[in-house]
Amino acid sequence: MKNDSPTHESVIKKVVSELSGCCFKEITAGASGKCPTLPSQSIIAEIIEICRSVLFPNVFSTEQPESATSDYFTGEKCMRLLFLLENQVSCDPSEDKNLLNANEISLNFLSTLPKIRGILLGDIEATFNGDPAAESSTEVLICYPGMRAIINYRIAHELYNLGARLIARLICEIAHSETGIDIHPGAVIGERFSIDHGTGVVIGATSIIGNDVKIYQGVTLGAKSFDTDENNNPIKGIPRHPILGNGVIVYSNASILGRITIGDNAVIGGNIWVDENVAPGERLIQARPNNVLRVAPKE
Amino acid sequence: MKNDSPTHESVIKKVVSELSGCCFKEITAGASGKCPTLPSQSIIAEIIEICRSVLFPNVFSTEQPESATSDYFTGEKCMRLLFLLENQVSCDPSEDKNLLNANEISLNFLSTLPKIRGILLGDIEATFNGDPAAESSTEVLICYPGMRAIINYRIAHELYNLGARLIARLICEIAHSETGIDIHPGAVIGERFSIDHGTGVVIGATSIIGNDVKIYQGVTLGAKSFDTDENNNPIKGIPRHPILGNGVIVYSNASILGRITIGDNAVIGGNIWVDENVAPGERLIQARPNNVLRVAPKE
Amino acid sequence: MKNDSPTHESVIKKVVSELSGCCFKEITAGASGKCPTLPSQSIIAEIIEICRSVLFPNVFSTEQPESATSDYFTGEKCMRLLFLLENQVSCDPSEDKNLLNANEISLNFLSTLPKIRGILLGDIEATFNGDPAAESSTEVLICYPGMRAIINYRIAHELYNLGARLIARLICEIAHSETGIDIHPGAVIGERFSIDHGTGVVIGATSIIGNDVKIYQGVTLGAKSFDTDENNNPIKGIPRHPILGNGVIVYSNASILGRITIGDNAVIGGNIWVDENVAPGERLIQARPNNVLRVAPKE
Repeated sequence: MKNDSPTHESVIKKVVSELSGCCFKEITAGASGKCPTLPSQSIIAEIIEICRSVLFPNVFSTEQPESATSDYFTGEKCMRLLFLLENQVSCDPSEDKNLLNANEISLNFLSTLPKIRGILLGDIEATFNGDPAAESSTEVLICYPGMRAIINYRIAHELYNLGARLIARLICEIAHSETGIDIHPGAVIGERFSIDHGTGVVIGATSIIGNDVKIYQGVTLGAKSFDTDENNNPIKGIPRHPILGNGVIVYSNASILGRITIGDNAVIGGNIWVDENVAPGERLIQARPNNVLRVAPKE
Repeated sequence: MKNDSPTHESVIKKVVSELSGCCFKEITAGASGKCPTLPSQSIIAEIIEICRSVLFPNVFSTEQPESATSDYFTGEKCMRLLFLLENQVSCDPSEDKNLLNANEISLNFLSTLPKIRGILLGDIEATFNGDPAAESSTEVLICYPGMRAIINYRIAHELYNLGARLIARLICEIAHSETGIDIHPGAVIGERFSIDHGTGVVIGATSIIGNDVKIYQGVTLGAKSFDTDENNNPIKGIPRHPILGNGVIVYSNASILGRITIGDNAVIGGNIWVDENVAPGERLIQARPNNVLRVAPKE
Repeated sequence: MKNDSPTHESVIKKVVSELSGCCFKEITAGASGKCPTLPSQSIIAEIIEICRSVLFPNVFSTEQPESATSDYFTGEKCMRLLFLLENQVSCDPSEDKNLLNANEISLNFLSTLPKIRGILLGDIEATFNGDPAAESSTEVLICYPGMRAIINYRIAHELYNLGARLIARLICEIAHSETGIDIHPGAVIGERFSIDHGTGVVIGATSIIGNDVKIYQGVTLGAKSFDTDENNNPIKGIPRHPILGNGVIVYSNASILGRITIGDNAVIGGNIWVDENVAPGERLIQARPNNVLRVAPKE
C-alpha cells in the first residue's frame, strides 16, 4: 500500500510538527465559558432561515400554509430562534463591548421582528413599483437578490446595534456571498429601499441612506481616504462614507466616495464617479459625446 | 432555567401576536389545488441538476460513465424530471397566463432538451475558441461560470416561453447567485454565445442578442429609462433594452443602455457607456489620454 | 395515471433516443484507470474545508478547540486530505502534463501547507491593517470574502504548479462562486496581499503581483488583446496580463489591461482604465470636473 509507505508517514509527521502550536489562540482564550468556539456559519444560516420563515411564513416556510401561518408555528420557530441566537451571541467576541448579556440581546432582537417585517413590506413594495420587469410582489420576495440582501441587512443591523457585531457581519456576508451585494451592518438605511440586480454593490460601514432610495448593480458607497495613525494604519470608526438624502437614485456602476452629501431627490447617472457634494434635485449625467473614440469599419 | 422565565414567555407571546395574520395570503389563495405552496428553490435546483446530467452525462453525472451514458440512465432521469417539473409548474402562479397545463408544459419542455444541448455545444465551442486561458472543452463546461449561467438561461428561456415564468426566474436567479451573472429568462440570445469571467453581467428582460456575441465581466445591457403611468410607476413589458447584432464583442464593465441597436460585428471597449446606436463594424474605444490626471511622485 | 399515458411514454422515448450517444466521450477515454470520472466538485470542496481546518484549527474546525489544535487532529486530517487529493489528482486530465504522479503531487502539496499558512498570516495582517472597518483578525479571517478567495488561490496555485491544473481551476472557481472574486491559479501573487469587498475582481492567468499590494472591488487585471492563429483563434499561454510592482494600490472598478507594468508604490484611482505603463510612485486620479454634466433641478 503506497499510503503506508515510510515517505508518506514521514511527510505527514513533518507537516503536523510544523503546523503545531499556531495560531489565533486569543480567539478561544477570550471567549466566554458558555461557548468556547467562534460563532458557526451554519447555525447563523439556520437563524436567518428561521427569521425568514417567521416573517413571511407563506413564502419561505416549507410547511403547508395553514400550519405555517398559525401562531403555533410562529411560536415554536421563535423558541428555536431564541435558543440558537442566545448560544451564538454568547460566542460573539464583540459581545463584551455591550452592556447586555446574550439572553437580553436575543430577547431584544426577537422583539424587533414585527418592526422589521413592517419595514421589509415597504422595501418589497418599492422594488415592485420601481421595476418594469417585476411581475408580482411574490417574485420580488423570492427572486430578487436585492430583497435577500436587504432582509439580511435589516436583521443584522438590529444585532449590530445590540452589540453582536461579529454575528451581524456574518449575516451580511452570507447575503454578500449569495447575491454579490455587500452591505455593512453598521450602515443606516431608511424605508422603502430598493436594489435592482445588485451584483457588485458596496455600502460602507458609516453610510447613511434616507427613505425611498433606489440603487442599481455595481454602485459603491465607499471611503475616499482615511486618517492614519503613527504606524500608517487607518484609524477605526471615523465617518468616511456618503450620506444620501431621501428619494435619491443611483444608476449602475456609479461610485460615490467620501463623507459627502447627495441631496434629496438627486440622481447620479450610470458609471459616474463622485467625490463632491451634490445639491438636492441635481442630476449628474454622462456628458455626450463622452470620452470615447468612434472608429468606423475599414472599407 | 432562564428560557422558561416569564420575560421570555411574554416576549414570545407578544411577538407571535404582532406577527399573526400577515401577509402574502394571495399567494396561496391563487394557487391551484394541486400545489398550495410556491415553487420550491431546492426542487428547482434538483431539476437543474437533472437537466445537466441528462444533457452532459459524462461530465455532470455522479454515476459511472458507462451507466451514465446509457439510455436507461437518461430515461430514468427524464421520468424524474417530468415528475418534479409538472409538480413545480402547477405551483407557478404565472401558469394561468398560458393556455397549457402543467403536464403539457413539462412534456413540451422535455422535448426541447435535444435542441438545447445542440445550442449549448456551440456555446462551449465559442467559449473555448475565444479564451486563450481555456485548456479544454471540459474545463469550459465545468469551470466557467459563463457556461453555468448560459445553461440555466437556455433551460429557463424555454420554460418562460411556455408560461412558467416564476420558475424561469428562479432558475436564472440560482445561476445569478452562483455566478454573479444576471440574465433575465425573457431575453432572446442567439447561438455561440460566450461570457468570460462574468461577475456583474446584467442582461435585461427585453434584450435581443444575435449569434457569435461575446461579452465580458461587468457588462450591463440595461434600460435607460422607462415610461411611467399616472402613479409614476413604470409600465410593465415595454421593450427597453438593447439589440446586439451578430458578432458583437462587449469588453468588461461597458454599459449599453436603452432600446438602441449595436450593429453586426461592432466592438464596445471596456468601461464605455453607450446610449446611442452603433453602426455595423464600428469600434468604440477609450480616448487616450483619457480623463485622468497623472501625478508624479514627490522628489 | 397521466404519467403513464402513451403521449408521456412516447415523448420520453423520443428524447432519450435524440440524446443518446452524445458527447464529451474523450473525457473518460483519456482518464487513467484509477478514476474513470472527472474530478468531483463536492470532494474538491471537502478538500478545501480540510485545508482550512488544518491551517486554522481554532477558527475553521467544528471540533472543540482543545482537540482541534492537537497534533492527533491535524494528523488525522492530513491523512484524509492525502487520501482524497490523490484520488482527485488521478482524475485530473491535466495530470499527464506533469512528470509527477498523483501520489507525488499530493505529498508535495501537503508539504507546502506550513509555508502557505505563513503567507496567509501575512495576508490577514495586511487586510486588518488596511481597513478601518475591520475590528479583529478573526473577523478578517471568517468574514472577509477577500481572505476566502486568497486562501483558495494560495492552495490552488501550488496544485497548479504541480500539474493538477483542472483541480486548481475548480478550487478557484469555488471561491469565485462564493465571493465574486475570480483569480486564475496561474497568476503569481506576492506576500501581504489584500482585497477589500472584492465582488467583480478579475486577476488573469499571466498576471504578476508584487508584495504589499491592495486592490478593491471590481478591479480587472485583464488582457487587452491576444495574438490569434490562422483560424483566428487566440494562441494559448502568451503573457498578456499586467505586472504590478510592490506596494501598488488599485481602487475600486479600475481596469488595468495588457502586458503593462505598474511601478512600485503606484496608485490607480477608482474607475480608471489603464493600458500603458505607470511609473513607480505615480498616481493616476480622476480629473475633476470629470466627464459629467450637472443639471440643476427645475425651479
